[in-house]
Amino acid sequence: MKSIIIASTSTIHGSGYLDYLLEELQDHYKSVNEILFIPYARPGGISHDDYTSTVSKAFNKIGKTVKGIHEFENAAEAVKNAQGIFVGGGNTFVLVSQLYRNKVLLPIKEAVKNGTPYLGTSAGSNICGLTMNTTNDMPIVYPPSFKTLGFVPFNINPHYLDPIEGSTHMGETRATRIKEFHAYNNQPVIGLREGSWIAVEGDKLTLKGTLEARIFEYNKEPYEIATHSDLAFLK
Amino acid sequence: MKSIIIASTSTIHGSGYLDYLLEELQDHYKSVNEILFIPYARPGGISHDDYTSTVSKAFNKIGKTVKGIHEFENAAEAVKNAQGIFVGGGNTFVLVSQLYRNKVLLPIKEAVKNGTPYLGTSAGSNICGLTMNTTNDMPIVYPPSFKTLGFVPFNINPHYLDPIEGSTHMGETRATRIKEFHAYNNQPVIGLREGSWIAVEGDKLTLKGTLEARIFEYNKEPYEIATHSDLAFLK
Repeated sequence: MKSIIIASTSTIHGSGYLDYLLEELQDHYKSVNEILFIPYARPGGISHDDYTSTVSKAFNKIGKTVKGIHEFENAAEAVKNAQGIFVGGGNTFVLVSQLYRNKVLLPIKEAVKNGTPYLGTSAGSNICGLTMNTTNDMPIVYPPSFKTLGFVPFNINPHYLDPIEGSTHMGETRATRIKEFHAYNNQPVIGLREGSWIAVEGDKLTLKGTLEARIFEYNKEPYEIATHSDLAFLK
Repeated sequence: MKSIIIASTSTIHGSGYLDYLLEELQDHYKSVNEILFIPYARPGGISHDDYTSTVSKAFNKIGKTVKGIHEFENAAEAVKNAQGIFVGGGNTFVLVSQLYRNKVLLPIKEAVKNGTPYLGTSAGSNICGLTMNTTNDMPIVYPPSFKTLGFVPFNINPHYLDPIEGSTHMGETRATRIKEFHAYNNQPVIGLREGSWIAVEGDKLTLKGTLEARIFEYNKEPYEIATHSDLAFLK
């Protein structure tokens, strides 16, 4: 049975890396001793080793060890043999390029379908949607495609940000960007605020955390849904 | 002689479309009666006609007529015959996709090399750089390449935004994004604040407007340069 956590962010303001999720992760990874970490998104351009070490420290708090996928000779094999998978945040373009280059998209899809628990944060959540077209990241490299894992039948917008009242900046708000997305695409988009996540258990999709999420459907006015809502209606 | 204005934004807070630039544009387009407008970037998903009508109203104030490139049967021919060109803002991914699809990148390059005055705002400025890798836009469509016009030997980041003091949002600042860009690319990036533009006259590149700009060079700490600085050193 599929078991996936799709989190808006790894870190909420004022607390440590993954802290707000650790309790949930203890349950999510209850049958897992070692987690395979995929550090490809390299936030701020840090090295795979440094990123893996940060993640390792967080998971040690709940008694899990962590190994980076870059430590394995064969990335696809590493995914196939993983007890649990975590894809961290950073730059979605870099992440997706590396996933294609190392031919691990299909192995991740297979493993997760077969029940390997998956956690994504930020960029690692973006790729759980149908495409990465609703990432907030800068396109610093050119990936071979924007198609992603499609664990859910819609797109994710992590770090969802409400328009800033009184802003004098003329750049587009997040809502305008997603409206532009719907001029060319028709799948729904969920704007996940920092601190929210989607829990996927088999066919059941639930919004978790304390906040509402914002739903953008094609040709509809955007609207809010309450936490603990069932998201199965979104497709 | 090349004559180009690369503007951070079309509109500054509290004034009308292109208002802050009109005096400069009167001079820039002094030998031009009709401007060819390229509305491909479609801000907010508006139609090519609606966008062209907005632009037309602004240019009428300085006695210029405007025709949208979509009104011509042959887009490449329209570029070749244009007295002056304006590429407006919106979504850079949509803009670049359309420029490739309609085969007008090369014709624009040729025309501008031969002296046709060019104005770009926002997305229309992004494409004046070597690549579109430093756009702020959402990747709502997949363009065939991120390579752009290369009128200047560096990349543009329009709508440059300083980090917001006291922000609790965990998304990357603009500076972090550009640092990530330099993990994979080595050309300089100029962060153009709203109200700034680059004036290109032949081989002369000058920062204009009232504000400083922020320069990001590979392997260097970012720094500020004063308005009216010569930008020829950037390559």
